Amino acid sequence: MEDVYKLVEAEPANMEGPEEEEDDPECNNLHQPLLKRNRTLSSSPLAIVGAKVSYIESLDYEINENDLFKQDWRSRSRVQVLQYIFLKWLLAFLVGLLTGGIATLINLSVENITGYKLLAVVRYIEQERYLMGFLYMAGANFLLTLVAAVLVVCFAPTAAGPGIPEIKAYLNGVDTPNMFGATTLFVKIIGSIGAVSAGLDLGKEGPLVHIGSCIASLLGQGGPDNYRIRWRWLRYFNNDRDRRDLITCGSSGVCAAFRAPVGGVLFALEEVATWWRSALLWRTFFSTAVVVMVLRAVMEYCKSGNCGLFGKGGLIMFDVSGVSVRYHVVDIIPGAVIGVLGGLLGSLYNYVLHQVLKVYNVINKKGKLHKLLLSLSVSIFTSVCLYGLPFLAKCRPCDSSLADSSCPTNGREGNFKQFNCPNGYYNDLATLLLTTNDDAVRNIFSINTSSEFNVFSLVVFFALYCILGLITFGIAVPSGLFLPIILMGSAYGRLLGLAMGPYTNIDQGLYAVLGAASLMAGSMRMTVSLCVIFLELTNNLLLLPITMLVLLISKTVGDCFNPSIYEIILELKGLPFLDAHPEAWMRNITVGELAVKPAVVTLNGIEKVRNIVEVLKNTTHNGFPVVDSGVTPPTGSPNGATELHGLILRAHLILALKKKWFQQERRRTEEWEVREKFTSIDLAERGATIEEVTVTKDEMEMYVDLHPLTNTTPYTVVESISVAKAMVLFRQVGLRHMLILPKYQAAGVSPVVGILTRQDLIAHNILSAFPHLERSKGNKKGH
Amino acid sequence: MEDVYKLVEAEPANMEGPEEEEDDPECNNLHQPLLKRNRTLSSSPLAIVGAKVSYIESLDYEINENDLFKQDWRSRSRVQVLQYIFLKWLLAFLVGLLTGGIATLINLSVENITGYKLLAVVRYIEQERYLMGFLYMAGANFLLTLVAAVLVVCFAPTAAGPGIPEIKAYLNGVDTPNMFGATTLFVKIIGSIGAVSAGLDLGKEGPLVHIGSCIASLLGQGGPDNYRIRWRWLRYFNNDRDRRDLITCGSSGVCAAFRAPVGGVLFALEEVATWWRSALLWRTFFSTAVVVMVLRAVMEYCKSGNCGLFGKGGLIMFDVSGVSVRYHVVDIIPGAVIGVLGGLLGSLYNYVLHQVLKVYNVINKKGKLHKLLLSLSVSIFTSVCLYGLPFLAKCRPCDSSLADSSCPTNGREGNFKQFNCPNGYYNDLATLLLTTNDDAVRNIFSINTSSEFNVFSLVVFFALYCILGLITFGIAVPSGLFLPIILMGSAYGRLLGLAMGPYTNIDQGLYAVLGAASLMAGSMRMTVSLCVIFLELTNNLLLLPITMLVLLISKTVGDCFNPSIYEIILELKGLPFLDAHPEAWMRNITVGELAVKPAVVTLNGIEKVRNIVEVLKNTTHNGFPVVDSGVTPPTGSPNGATELHGLILRAHLILALKKKWFQQERRRTEEWEVREKFTSIDLAERGATIEEVTVTKDEMEMYVDLHPLTNTTPYTVVESISVAKAMVLFRQVGLRHMLILPKYQAAGVSPVVGILTRQDLIAHNILSAFPHLERSKGNKKGH
Repeated sequence: MEDVYKLVEAEPANMEGPEEEEDDPECNNLHQPLLKRNRTLSSSPLAIVGAKVSYIESLDYEINENDLFKQDWRSRSRVQVLQYIFLKWLLAFLVGLLTGGIATLINLSVENITGYKLLAVVRYIEQERYLMGFLYMAGANFLLTLVAAVLVVCFAPTAAGPGIPEIKAYLNGVDTPNMFGATTLFVKIIGSIGAVSAGLDLGKEGPLVHIGSCIASLLGQGGPDNYRIRWRWLRYFNNDRDRRDLITCGSSGVCAAFRAPVGGVLFALEEVATWWRSALLWRTFFSTAVVVMVLRAVMEYCKSGNCGLFGKGGLIMFDVSGVSVRYHVVDIIPGAVIGVLGGLLGSLYNYVLHQVLKVYNVINKKGKLHKLLLSLSVSIFTSVCLYGLPFLAKCRPCDSSLADSSCPTNGREGNFKQFNCPNGYYNDLATLLLTTNDDAVRNIFSINTSSEFNVFSLVVFFALYCILGLITFGIAVPSGLFLPIILMGSAYGRLLGLAMGPYTNIDQGLYAVLGAASLMAGSMRMTVSLCVIFLELTNNLLLLPITMLVLLISKTVGDCFNPSIYEIILELKGLPFLDAHPEAWMRNITVGELAVKPAVVTLNGIEKVRNIVEVLKNTTHNGFPVVDSGVTPPTGSPNGATELHGLILRAHLILALKKKWFQQERRRTEEWEVREKFTSIDLAERGATIEEVTVTKDEMEMYVDLHPLTNTTPYTVVESISVAKAMVLFRQVGLRHMLILPKYQAAGVSPVVGILTRQDLIAHNILSAFPHLERSKGNKKGH
Repeated sequence: MEDVYKLVEAEPANMEGPEEEEDDPECNNLHQPLLKRNRTLSSSPLAIVGAKVSYIESLDYEINENDLFKQDWRSRSRVQVLQYIFLKWLLAFLVGLLTGGIATLINLSVENITGYKLLAVVRYIEQERYLMGFLYMAGANFLLTLVAAVLVVCFAPTAAGPGIPEIKAYLNGVDTPNMFGATTLFVKIIGSIGAVSAGLDLGKEGPLVHIGSCIASLLGQGGPDNYRIRWRWLRYFNNDRDRRDLITCGSSGVCAAFRAPVGGVLFALEEVATWWRSALLWRTFFSTAVVVMVLRAVMEYCKSGNCGLFGKGGLIMFDVSGVSVRYHVVDIIPGAVIGVLGGLLGSLYNYVLHQVLKVYNVINKKGKLHKLLLSLSVSIFTSVCLYGLPFLAKCRPCDSSLADSSCPTNGREGNFKQFNCPNGYYNDLATLLLTTNDDAVRNIFSINTSSEFNVFSLVVFFALYCILGLITFGIAVPSGLFLPIILMGSAYGRLLGLAMGPYTNIDQGLYAVLGAASLMAGSMRMTVSLCVIFLELTNNLLLLPITMLVLLISKTVGDCFNPSIYEIILELKGLPFLDAHPEAWMRNITVGELAVKPAVVTLNGIEKVRNIVEVLKNTTHNGFPVVDSGVTPPTGSPNGATELHGLILRAHLILALKKKWFQQERRRTEEWEVREKFTSIDLAERGATIEEVTVTKDEMEMYVDLHPLTNTTPYTVVESISVAKAMVLFRQVGLRHMLILPKYQAAGVSPVVGILTRQDLIAHNILSAFPHLERSKGNKKGH
């Protein structure tokens, strides 16, 4: 988890920096206290986590309407526009196709690897060579975990975990570095196969979401960073906005894990995305449709036995559609009980997992070897438990009504595993433990099997998966949270079903399904998407009302205690995620109070090269207001008049320096000059630093006309607006910088009071600078 | 449809009015041409429709952060906050409960009325008294239509039609008058029962959405306008924001028509709502869950036969889950064909319906009698066709494999109606026509009945419903569009199935389902919600991939030709709906060009009563910027400094006059003075007019301190921002007024350049003022 913590960063590129503004010395008395406050503002997350930090950038979701962009926009022909639209759809199709293909590959590999592993183990057990069986299983699991962990630790630390919080942050406007590269994608695929095959208590849903997003990002930029196809058609996608849309399509990859297309779309909508448009809904839906079609086609093909063990056992879907599930109005009461318990357990799980992750963080920070050792210890512990615990269970006689072929079984699937029992007997704990996670879920969800599992086995299963679920999530392999929670939840649900047996007519399998749903809602706090995913998993619409009830109750209960698990992880990682709801106390503070007035560094419309170089070298700001002084406004007195021209990005200043966009005299340039010098592709480039630029001494005295490169239409707020409203604007419109204008209109007043960035609007940062707001915080959130 | 057109209004209360600003006479040279432009801007929709107009207000979704609000906010105790949250959920629950109850009532009434009517008709036919049968049926239909139409025409003209476009506009921020009253609700319920029972070609989904929204609105404001419960707890709901949220919950009422809870939520999300929050998703889901539970409970109860004919025939759900539907990869081709045809037919339907509605408008404008006559003629025409056409069909022998009791039948339900045929024969056209619309859909969706309907009958059915679908929608009764389109689509789908029979292995019933889906997508342009609704209707998840494919294709094809039917109706009604996507040419014009600089009427922070009265009498503006002059800014020269204090609403100015918030001298008031004079409930009141206010001559010379009533945190834009970006801000944040600030900073420059309102940002209005933008319009939308 080290990678997690090194991401914490105060976004220095955007903050109102501690620099002196040279041309305003008379303000220095005001400067000092404000500056101090400001410093606290932007460095606070650093102080909490205390790890070495890397560089988090914000994303430019705002359209940068400078002169060049407008020309480019106007010059787009109808054909190019159609190309663009066509390409959008093509990319969405490719995202779906590739995600579907990779999901198939993962499933195929996992099923085959686990299948042959388990078959070999079963053979040893049949020969009563128990130790050999254990060694074989533990060894195989150890090796598979080793592969996954080594890949993750050495090549792509960001591939660890589910990746969903980072994607959520990306769509909110936070660019976590190395999240969507080709290496990450590769490691995530192989690592996921290894980790799931190793029998670890983790799922492939989170990784599939991440994989979908990686594919989307890579396709959008035309390939991995080093070997990009610079296809002319792709140039319109060279911006954060279109990338965001594509990644939203990719983030519905959860549908591939559950074959739940509508659920996948809703998951992307409810949990992952920050902005949402109707057109995007449609395109995401298209992607998931393609994914599901690919999966269906492959499964059709594999029915004939061409895919090894794939399709023989754990398919992706837990199909309980064949049986009729019955319940009545009185069953609302057990439903409510499940919901309340699920909410309690879910929030408890969130709390304990939070603590475990903090401990893991300390271990992981010690280095790569520690990370590896932690992962491998978890793997060995898992193997010991999975293999050893079934020996504690008593052998149970097969029900005589069952055919001999279905009880007991020794193959990969089946509800009644023989394990160490004599013929005619089965071991119910082995049925649950010595199998793939998918099969375990199917077994525990199975209906009309009320006498199959005894209380002892279920208690052991539940306890084991509680422990595994807590210790497995933080290790350095790709892991999803859905399956561990489903396993835990189904066990507690089934236990509850056993306990309530005499008083209800809900089947125990249904109890297990509802238990899983309630724990998910209690931990992840999703409702609509979970409901639809369960609907699609169980293929039974009649379950809908009771599932809804359970989900609503457990989410409500869980919300009383702590935030959702993804929010906890986001906070742990220190990602500056902007919440949808401003806190109540944000109405009591204005942006003017947040902004440090003298600290904003403005540039003139036609600026000396020397000044630009100095500003770029001495500040880490990422956007600079451009102001023309000495202009004549249409009304009012012309004395001391200044004009706000807009906002220029650091990247564009560096571009101007690199391209030597210099002139001897102070003059406005013509349109054709700009067009000759810059293309819209140049403007889309990011990542150049001031250190790469060399400027001669003569050039230092020349001038740069910043007007054509300036975004003339930045979003602004007046200094008297409340932070709550500014935050709503910032998030809703998807900004990176927001200019603060003065509420005063007079000669000599600076036309820009400050710049707000994401970091300035994070509740935690404001509170650490203005602690008096804390006491009025109360419980008023959510209004 | 007269009611539709009289709503067209240029929102005079908000527009930049043609008033002279007295204290700025030197600007008059600038004033004239700009004013003219401005007049064009806000009066254009009027010119198009040319009817007499009523008053459309915008809604105040922005939080009005004035001093009083802030005090009220701060003084809310924790208990009050919990009350508020509890009440939100309670109201969502009640919305669901009442919507479910009313949906049940409508279904029950419709099933019983139609059922007994049809049974009587069948009895006449058995006795071969065909004329009597016709007279009975036509007479009953006539009376039912008469009831519905008289109620609508005389009491609640806004209850005509589906109501969905108006709700869409409401959630976008446009307040259509009389949309959510108690009378409208009552007329909608009774009218819907009458119109559906009368056998007209219309559904109850649209009305149910409207009914849900009415209930939500009435609950939120504590009852009908005249008899409101002024419960103290409800006072926090006395604002447009919370009402909007509640109405969003109510707008998922479509779930009641199809028993499709997830589909209902998605419909509200995809089609109706403009803003969406995760919390709202959850609450809407809760409401739909309650609706569905109520429906299920009633249906369970009615199974024992306590509800008359309800539950015997057309239930709400078209359950095809029992049968296994099969299709293969090659069936993508017929799926694509259905999709393309559905898109073409859907857009053709939209086009023709548009023309029909225009003609109807001319007729409806002539008066109430014309409206009534139109409705009644359609009713008679429908009766003639439904009763007469089956005589044209040949009697067909029953399949010998069927039991005698199922073919032919004479009861209400059944796939093989005897009608005028001898025993052992059935009339396939009568099966489709002499039944409720719900039953007709179930019959045509039925599976494994490939030989039941012959081509002639299907062609007649299709042609008839095309005509009925076009002529019925515009009449003055509550009507939904879903069912007519489903009927048309299923007929064409089934025809296609017959034609393709030899080349495909898709069942004809499935073809009918896909045809209905494709026509819906082709006309309404929804995707995800439609898909889920069909999923829930057919209760068969295996249909998902092919349904998705068909929907995607037909929406794409339809989008090539015209906008969705709801958008067409919105435009016809002249509702100023703000689109999600700015047009491409909006990037080429700035808000400064839109705003007429001298036309904005500003008030001083402490203003003379006379001035306020004059401004209120002479302008129709709804918001006035409040500016303090002669202030001393912290930096810059104090000469000629002005300060933008905020924006005050007309309602609050009137309130200040009504409450005699006057003082002899020009001074700022203290907080306690304000608190004594005004409560937050006063501030929430709307609708008072300046005519109600009486001010004595002495009082005219006194002063009002506007500061405490002013919203100090209005959203602002700089005059150089493009209209595209301003529109995104306006829509995303949900504004009513947006202040335009000058980009210049100098003494004497007005701190406010103008105010933008919804009307100023409507593409059509801008284009009529700036025709040169039209040519650059092109096809670039959707970027």
